[in-house]
Amino acid sequence: MTTSFKNNEFHDLMFGRKSVRVYDEKVKISHEEMLEMIQEATSAPSSVNLQPWRFVVIESEAEKAKLKPLIRFNTRQNETSSAMILIFGDLRCHDLAEQIYDEAVEAGKMPKEVRDQQIEAIVPYYESFSKQKMSDVVKIDASLAAMQLMLVARAHGYETNPIGGFEEELLAEAFGLDKERYVPVMIVSIGKEVEAGFPSTRMKAEEITSFK
Amino acid sequence: MTTSFKNNEFHDLMFGRKSVRVYDEKVKISHEEMLEMIQEATSAPSSVNLQPWRFVVIESEAEKAKLKPLIRFNTRQNETSSAMILIFGDLRCHDLAEQIYDEAVEAGKMPKEVRDQQIEAIVPYYESFSKQKMSDVVKIDASLAAMQLMLVARAHGYETNPIGGFEEELLAEAFGLDKERYVPVMIVSIGKEVEAGFPSTRMKAEEITSFK
Repeated sequence: MTTSFKNNEFHDLMFGRKSVRVYDEKVKISHEEMLEMIQEATSAPSSVNLQPWRFVVIESEAEKAKLKPLIRFNTRQNETSSAMILIFGDLRCHDLAEQIYDEAVEAGKMPKEVRDQQIEAIVPYYESFSKQKMSDVVKIDASLAAMQLMLVARAHGYETNPIGGFEEELLAEAFGLDKERYVPVMIVSIGKEVEAGFPSTRMKAEEITSFK
Repeated sequence: MTTSFKNNEFHDLMFGRKSVRVYDEKVKISHEEMLEMIQEATSAPSSVNLQPWRFVVIESEAEKAKLKPLIRFNTRQNETSSAMILIFGDLRCHDLAEQIYDEAVEAGKMPKEVRDQQIEAIVPYYESFSKQKMSDVVKIDASLAAMQLMLVARAHGYETNPIGGFEEELLAEAFGLDKERYVPVMIVSIGKEVEAGFPSTRMKAEEITSFK
């Protein structure tokens, strides 16, 4: 994979990340670069590699106007960001299991027998999950990709803000997705920083960790 | 923050990550280094900075034996890893809101008035969440830290494997946590690689992204 990282220093990418409130409205991100960032972010792991993350990139004024009443706070991010990236989890991700595992076989990364065993085990296992359990799985997996997306954005010279407050019941349908299949996980605003939020502290690791 | 990164190349840390099945049983990780990795990983963002992630680091033979019947697959990781890091979400994380925001004020990162407004808004808002909504919030937040933990582990020279298949109803109590308060999110095995799983492919970004 070719990449165009402007910054490849992990320490700086991780500790320099901050939640940006106001972006430079003049900055647009090309679809090519946006797809490159999503491709990089989705190197994240997922349960049995089913990759349930789905992305809707809101960049036009008309669609941002549709999004506005659906987010409770963070309206400045919606107004000024290059894009609002809606991240959904696909509750029917196992419908793509054969496609995903076939690609691994074709790429010479997995023997055909392993593919067959996996498909035979995974699909009925996923079918047995309750809707709540599936929702948990896809939200956790999609969050892993979301974290990498925030780091990847910085590697490309952008800043982000993860947004959790939105109308969960309305988000999918507002953008043409089947709400029974796609559950919203997070919105990530992205663009060039003009104004960051307050810097934040963290609890000490000793306070939140026990050893057994 | 001082760190001891052996590898600081983000590109390599992200794309070189793989799920390791068998670790070098002789390798132990000091508590000091484990806490350092958890401190680094928890630079991840969380909803209104409530940091609901909690870590239980299982390293003794006796505790690994307790964990064994609670994980469905991944028994080799349990046997050979330096540690199995259980990541929980704290459904009462907002009980720590004052402590967290007081620290930000003391560190000079937030004005006292903003702290007061935030506390007044956040605590009742979180109290109004259903248990299911709280569970979603803490699982998403804890997953962001989990992703950073997997990258941080590589920066320290270790490999990991995220594990989602375990007895969710039993995990907290087995290790002395109140199951009504702490919901299990993920287990991350960590250690020095002996044997990795199959390499995996990813769907193309174009297949999982739409622009609006």
